[in-house]
Order: sequence, then C-alpha cells, then structure tokens
Amino acid sequence: MSVDLATPCLVVDLDVLDGNISLMARLAAEHGLALRPHAKTHKSPAIARRQLDAGAVGLTVATVSEAEVFAAAGCTDLFLAYPVYASTEVGARLRQLLERARVRVRVGVDSIESARALAAQVGACDGRLSVLVEVDSGQHRTGVPPEDAGELAAEAAHAGLDVAGVFTFPGHSYAPEGRQRAADDEQRALATAAAALRGAGVEPEVVSGGSTPSAALVHDGTLTELRPGVYVFGDAQQWELGSITPDRIALTCLATVVSHAGGRVVLDSGSKALGADRAPWATGHGRLLDHPGARIVQLSEHHAVVDWTDDALPEIGSRVRVVPNHVCNAVNAHDTLVVTQNGALVDRWPVAARGANT
Amino acid sequence: MSVDLATPCLVVDLDVLDGNISLMARLAAEHGLALRPHAKTHKSPAIARRQLDAGAVGLTVATVSEAEVFAAAGCTDLFLAYPVYASTEVGARLRQLLERARVRVRVGVDSIESARALAAQVGACDGRLSVLVEVDSGQHRTGVPPEDAGELAAEAAHAGLDVAGVFTFPGHSYAPEGRQRAADDEQRALATAAAALRGAGVEPEVVSGGSTPSAALVHDGTLTELRPGVYVFGDAQQWELGSITPDRIALTCLATVVSHAGGRVVLDSGSKALGADRAPWATGHGRLLDHPGARIVQLSEHHAVVDWTDDALPEIGSRVRVVPNHVCNAVNAHDTLVVTQNGALVDRWPVAARGANT
Repeated sequence: MSVDLATPCLVVDLDVLDGNISLMARLAAEHGLALRPHAKTHKSPAIARRQLDAGAVGLTVATVSEAEVFAAAGCTDLFLAYPVYASTEVGARLRQLLERARVRVRVGVDSIESARALAAQVGACDGRLSVLVEVDSGQHRTGVPPEDAGELAAEAAHAGLDVAGVFTFPGHSYAPEGRQRAADDEQRALATAAAALRGAGVEPEVVSGGSTPSAALVHDGTLTELRPGVYVFGDAQQWELGSITPDRIALTCLATVVSHAGGRVVLDSGSKALGADRAPWATGHGRLLDHPGARIVQLSEHHAVVDWTDDALPEIGSRVRVVPNHVCNAVNAHDTLVVTQNGALVDRWPVAARGANT
Repeated sequence: MSVDLATPCLVVDLDVLDGNISLMARLAAEHGLALRPHAKTHKSPAIARRQLDAGAVGLTVATVSEAEVFAAAGCTDLFLAYPVYASTEVGARLRQLLERARVRVRVGVDSIESARALAAQVGACDGRLSVLVEVDSGQHRTGVPPEDAGELAAEAAHAGLDVAGVFTFPGHSYAPEGRQRAADDEQRALATAAAALRGAGVEPEVVSGGSTPSAALVHDGTLTELRPGVYVFGDAQQWELGSITPDRIALTCLATVVSHAGGRVVLDSGSKALGADRAPWATGHGRLLDHPGARIVQLSEHHAVVDWTDDALPEIGSRVRVVPNHVCNAVNAHDTLVVTQNGALVDRWPVAARGANT
C-alpha cells in the first residue's frame, strides 16, 4: 500500500469481504434459510448494509447498545441473541429502542426470572418485542435443555411475552473435528426444542441456529434461520478449523517489524491490536497471511514474537499482514477499518459499535 | 451502589487506588529510585495526574499515540519503553510531539536499524529526544543481550542520538515462584548493560527496570528508576502471583448475573469487557472479589461462566464484582472508568488513551 499507515491497524480487502457476504447469502438461499448475520463481528454499519443488501433478513446483535447503534444506522429488524436481564436501566433502553419507527426486536430468554423482568419492564410492545427461548445444544454456556424449552415458552407467554420460537449457538463447533458433530447436535437440540414448544401450545415460527464453522452443515430442514458472524472476515481460528480457506480471509492487521531480538521477528501487533484469544487447540497467538508456516509464539500488549520458518527474516521497519486468532475481539479494539481494493486504500469505515458492550 | 449502572462496566475504588499510588511512591522513595509508572495500564490522565502529584518523575508509555494523549494532558516527561521504528509517519508524529513546549521524550532502541531510522527521522531534537538501550533480562521478547548494550549504545551515539542509559522489562516475573529470580536477573542484566555502556564510553544516567511483581524486590543499588504499571489497580494475575493482596484491588468489572444454565452462574462480563488474557498458570479466566473460591471457567465475548463454590447461587439480575485476569487489556476495552468512594459514585474518568495503540 502506498499510504504510510500508522500500525498496527486493521485492513479489509473489499473484494474478499464481498465474496464472503455473497457466498453465505447464496448458501442460505439455496437451503431456504433466512440469514441474520451476527453484527458483533464487524460492529460496522457499512458492513451491515452490505449484508442486508445481499439479502440478509436482519441482524443479530449481542447487546442492547449494539442494537442501539444498528437501529440508529437504519436496521429495523434485530435479534438480541442473548439472555438479556431487563434491569430498570436495560428496560428503559429497550423501550426507547422500540419507540423508533418500524424497529422490531427479538430477545433471547433462558430463565423465567429474565422472562418476567422483560415482561415487567418492556412487555410485548404492540407486537414489536418478541422472545426466542435459548436452548443448550452442547456448548454448555447458556440455554435450557431442549426438552425444557416448552415449559419456559409457556411460562414466558403466560408472563405476557410474545414467544416466536427457539434458538441455540453451537459454540462447540469451535473445535478441531468438532464441526459436524456440533451441527448434528444443533439440529437435534432445535428439533427437540421446537417439538417441546408445539407440545406446550406455542408454534415456533423461528428456529434459529448457526455459527460460521457449522453454517454449511445444517440442512436437514430443522432450522429456519442462520446466524453466522465471523464468515465476513474469517480469522486464524476458522483457518485452523478448516471452515475457511486463507484466500477468503478479508481482514488482517497490518503490523511493523520492530525487532529481530533473539533471531526472531517481533511485530508491533500485540494483544491490544489482535485481542488475546487463544483456544487450547490453536497453533499460536495468530498467523501471517503471506507466511503460512510462521506462528506468533508469544503475545503481549504491544509485541507479537514470531517464529519465522522462511529463510530470511523480514527487515526491521517492513510490514506484514497478521491474521488474528479471533477477529471479533480484534475488531472491538479498533475505531476504524481501513478498506482496500486491489491493494489501494479506497475507504475508512467507522467501527461504530466498538465498545458497545452493555 | 444506588445508581443503576449499565453492565458490564469498570468501577474504581478511589481510596484503594490512592493507597496503591502512595504505597509504590513510598517504596520508590525509600530506595532512592525514580518512579515512572507505566500509563498503558490506566490510559487515564486523571490517574496519571495522581501518580505525578504523589512524586512520580514522569510517565512510561508504550506507543507514540499514548505519548500524544498524555502530553496533551500536560505530562512533559515521557519514556516510550518500546523499540519504536521511526517510519516516515511515526517520525512526523514524534517531531510534532517534541515541538510541544517543554516535552522531553525518551525512546527505547534494541537495533541499529531502529536507531538509524530514529536519528534520520527525528534526531536529538536539541536534547529533548534521547534513547535508552533495551536489554533482555530473561523474558526473551525484545532487547539485546546485556553484554551487547555497549556496542549498540556507541552505534546509536555515532548515528547522532543522545544515549541516556539502559532499560529492561523483566516480564518473566509473571510466573508463580518466578518473582525473586526475575528480579535477580533484572538487576544482573542491567548491571552488565550499564558496565557495557561505560566500557563503550557512554555514561548510563538512567538504569530503568521494574514490573509490578518485581518492584518490591530490586534494591541492590543497580536501578535508578522503576516502571511498574499494574500496581495502581491490581488484577487476578497479581493476586495469584502474590504480588498484591485482594484488599488492594482497586478496579473491578461490575457484572450482572444473566443465567443459571446448568446450575452455574453466567455473567455478562465476557472477553469484550474483561479481555481474553489467560496465562498458562492462571486458575481461571478471572475471579470474583467477594467470592474468592469462585472461578470463571469459560469465557466468551459476552458470557463468563462461573463455577460457584458458595452455597447459594446469586439471583438472576443481581450484580457481582469481577476481577479481570489482566487489567491493562480490560481497561483498553472501555471508554470510561466509574469512580466510587465508600460505595458511592463520585466521578467518571475518561480512558482518554483507549485504543491509542499505534
């Protein structure tokens, strides 16, 4: 790139990004699934707009403040895929959000306590607020057992909420060799949960699942909606899981070689630029797009120490493209994405929902 | 706290913070050491002001953009403890920084390439820019071997830079039972490096070291300056290393219990609020200040799953105080610190250098 960008900074390849957006839109369309991408990955209205223009039915968000940012940017159909607890403060923000013209919000629930708080603080809001019951499909994080979904749905409906269906996040798809198993678990859990809702007299209009690693594998007819997030950019985790090939990685962190201490390469892209995620199965703290053999073997806030496998070390002062392990946390550390096309800087997009985590 | 704060948010206990600032100031004064706290931990001018008022000689920063923020806030004596590579862009920013009235900047160097770039782009700037040679005292991240410090100092001086001394970061003090060994390594490495500078005809005016785990252990007369950072707040890492007791932890993340899925406690303080750091020796992804037996056993962007050891689970909707593993990355995820005294909200401080990582 001819511009002397301050490093570390995040750089998006526009053509690769658009290719990823199209590919997932096509996959969803081919299987008759609604696509509702998770916007926590990019936190950027400019990217949300491209996803919606490519056919996404709405957005998934993780927090009320993300919902606020994307509603302000014109997105009117939002699913808050999280067991939100409606405190007085959260309730007031949700009511304010729903006062916007045409905004419809779905919220996750996995306990009667949260359902009651939501009913008391917000209510059905003339049909503009509805809930999906979260079920645990094997990640063991949040969600009720699938067979208990009907009871919670009935209780939530009794509390005065509009129950639209069920959802899960098959987070255990983030494991080597775990993708197909997680996709199978996801379909089975959602099928059980949907049947439990019907048994309780609630028709599940929405049966929502999907993660980037499992998105291509859930097509037995159970799901009505997919919610992948990371697919827009890809990252080192997806590369190592085999759910994305390196040529489809659309976001890298441009970093400067600052030292050759100890005969290794030290970059200025530390954990404050890349995020500190490292899954137990990851081969390092991040990878280099143009040097597949290299690994970040030590990561601190402003240093990435790289074991370099190619013959010659890149010169001090030269620049390399780092692939973060987990792109969602990398993006949340930056205020701007530098957008490039054919190697030229064509735009800068604000990460408008960076830090919008309440 | 009576105010219904949006969670997750970072809350500072002002009295504990001031106690930590005084304690470190006293430790440095008793041993005749200059104290130059690392501001990357708090990124907050309000806290820097309290450190300077308590006797700190200046601040340590990690990036040019942090230097810019703290200079704009009135700090005139800054050490950029990093092997900065002065590209055209970085050089221009450093020159602009040094044009401010009375600002003096020291910069780390650990290669002749970086020294030459700095000399070419910035130069000595009428004595307002000087460099410290970085040596590796055992962390094996950046820095030359201590015995090579004289040669690099002579080359940097020859390139036109003003060489003020040597520095190291004994990062291997971040290991259980490793604190005393790292402090010993640090003193030995700095003594060797200082002698190497003298041997090369450069008088080391500054011999700078210090990390929070090793700060209390380096008093053989080698060091002239201490640069701890984390001590202002403390965190779960320091708690587990034994370098701080839990009653001295000044910053916690206020979190809401959002789920009891699987009979565990799930909090809304995920890695986007706490940072994703987890050292291999850490007992979890974070701890709870008021429940020392509890551990965060699973952490994703917006969920912290806690193994709860007390009898009863805290109610859904109730709030707890989470101690992040590594406070520097937690702070870098937030724009504001909520300041409390005796449990009452007394102020809000901007994290002015949040994201200032270039």
